[in-house]
Amino acid sequence: MHDKDEVEGRVTLGVVARQAGVSPSTVSKVLNGHSDVSSETRVRVERLLDAHGYRRRTRRAPRAPLVELVFHELDSVWAVELIRGVENVARQNGATVALTGSGTRHAPASDWIEGVLRRRPLGVVLVLSALPEEAKSRLRLRDIPFAIVDPAGDPDPDVPSVGSANWAGGLAATRHLIERGHRRVAIITGPEDMMCSLARLDGYRSAMTMAGLVPDPRLIRFGDFHVRGGFEHARELLAGPDRPTAIFAGSDLQALGVLEAARTRGLSVPEDLSVVGYDDVPLAQWSSPALTTVHQPLRHMAEEAARMLFRPAGPGGAAQRIELATHLVVRRSTAPVGGG
Amino acid sequence: MHDKDEVEGRVTLGVVARQAGVSPSTVSKVLNGHSDVSSETRVRVERLLDAHGYRRRTRRAPRAPLVELVFHELDSVWAVELIRGVENVARQNGATVALTGSGTRHAPASDWIEGVLRRRPLGVVLVLSALPEEAKSRLRLRDIPFAIVDPAGDPDPDVPSVGSANWAGGLAATRHLIERGHRRVAIITGPEDMMCSLARLDGYRSAMTMAGLVPDPRLIRFGDFHVRGGFEHARELLAGPDRPTAIFAGSDLQALGVLEAARTRGLSVPEDLSVVGYDDVPLAQWSSPALTTVHQPLRHMAEEAARMLFRPAGPGGAAQRIELATHLVVRRSTAPVGGG
Repeated sequence: MHDKDEVEGRVTLGVVARQAGVSPSTVSKVLNGHSDVSSETRVRVERLLDAHGYRRRTRRAPRAPLVELVFHELDSVWAVELIRGVENVARQNGATVALTGSGTRHAPASDWIEGVLRRRPLGVVLVLSALPEEAKSRLRLRDIPFAIVDPAGDPDPDVPSVGSANWAGGLAATRHLIERGHRRVAIITGPEDMMCSLARLDGYRSAMTMAGLVPDPRLIRFGDFHVRGGFEHARELLAGPDRPTAIFAGSDLQALGVLEAARTRGLSVPEDLSVVGYDDVPLAQWSSPALTTVHQPLRHMAEEAARMLFRPAGPGGAAQRIELATHLVVRRSTAPVGGG
Repeated sequence: MHDKDEVEGRVTLGVVARQAGVSPSTVSKVLNGHSDVSSETRVRVERLLDAHGYRRRTRRAPRAPLVELVFHELDSVWAVELIRGVENVARQNGATVALTGSGTRHAPASDWIEGVLRRRPLGVVLVLSALPEEAKSRLRLRDIPFAIVDPAGDPDPDVPSVGSANWAGGLAATRHLIERGHRRVAIITGPEDMMCSLARLDGYRSAMTMAGLVPDPRLIRFGDFHVRGGFEHARELLAGPDRPTAIFAGSDLQALGVLEAARTRGLSVPEDLSVVGYDDVPLAQWSSPALTTVHQPLRHMAEEAARMLFRPAGPGGAAQRIELATHLVVRRSTAPVGGG
């Protein structure tokens, strides 16, 4: 079996060299990550190797006992829960977590993959939505397993990923407000081009429709998932006489912006305005008042993604998508309409 | 030189073996991290080696291009800034950050050092105050440099560490309130057994005294640096008729607790009560209102600690202590006494 693999491998390398128009030794240089190959040639060879389903034999090449965690951006609100999740699973497998910032000012986005290939970790967990094709083929070629934690809810069908139930979260948040008698319920969801924003908005619409309510289009806003977006939209929403009695803020940071907008408008939460967040990051329980919010199981999502690295691929090596449940956490920022 | 070192090393090993009452091969096993030595013997041998100033020759043993960051506890409020700082310096030195939780539920506090010694990183940054003697000698013995980020302000004279100016921070926070006309200024500092709590309190006292004010002992409280401590002490402070007009909260989390206590007492911040935090963690700017607070340069502190790893020891190998400056950041939670 071992020998047959090796022979097949050698045949593949020869075919790829011919198709790429390079010598077999160039193919071998690409495989070994030598730097004296032009990046153009490297990409061509790697794509062909990947297309042929070639996987580097790695039994003899030692792996570093690391699980790499690659952040698009090391965000203070999310990062720690995700790190904890990956750390739990890494530890169970005798490994340590190495952190790689993929898109900071100091490290161009194309840089991180070089480091990962050099370190040869046991696997890579990425926190982002779209992994470039080139990165995928380079990781596959070196037989480095990877999985994506994708809170944005826009999974690449080609890549194992873990998300959570955004539509159901939007539904639960809105139902909670309707059950407390709110009829003028506004939503500030995330950016229009993110699937999770749209799924949460659709959950809101469905809850309204199921309760026989017609959502007022003026009460539907697209924010930026940050404090500022929540603040600015809420300032506008709370300006008029027919202001909403409740705002579903789409993220905890936006909910903090809504709290500040209410304060500057002289409105008390929850007496004059109910507010629901989304995510349940640690600061949600420290705000004043503490936020009612939809719990997105970030730590658990990171654990599941890390477990995928250590699990053999399913039949046919099909990529796997897991969606974890969300649930509402009721705290002090919501009350029955007309005062708590 | 090389040969002389080696001969000296061999002589030391022989002496240590005799003093420890073990064979030279046992000493060598300890040095190589073999597991078939009782932990009692290992500790005895390591202490003797350390006392003799023995340093393992490491030029031939390859180091992993890692900087380990060891947290006493991976705290969501602090961690990301510290990670960013260490990551900046690691990257400049071609290394990656590996995270090690030293005291979580899943990893007993004695466990982390084993992993560090196994991985042989370029160096270790620890976020804690007191590093056990045993850990120090084991790291020194393997010639793995280490430095401590010590926001608690209780440096071990024996270990390179980075802190910040707690006394000056307490002084600046209190002066800011006095300059705005506040006379009844309360302080909720941290736990009584932490140097940084005491230093901030002394800064408060000095500012009061320098302004000709006598601090009312009933307005001086020791908290826990968490939201709950701030909330509970502020509830009490704000109950009586002679309540303070300003509270210096000693940490941003305690300040959030003070904001919540004010809300539940029906007081507006800053109109009825001014609040100053400490730390300037990211959430300080997202609270409602945004916190006036003392900026503790966590990222910069982590960078300095990481730089110490790559810097040759000074003359005599003396441990180094750096204290970085703090400064006040004025936002919306403070106003002149009697209304903003």
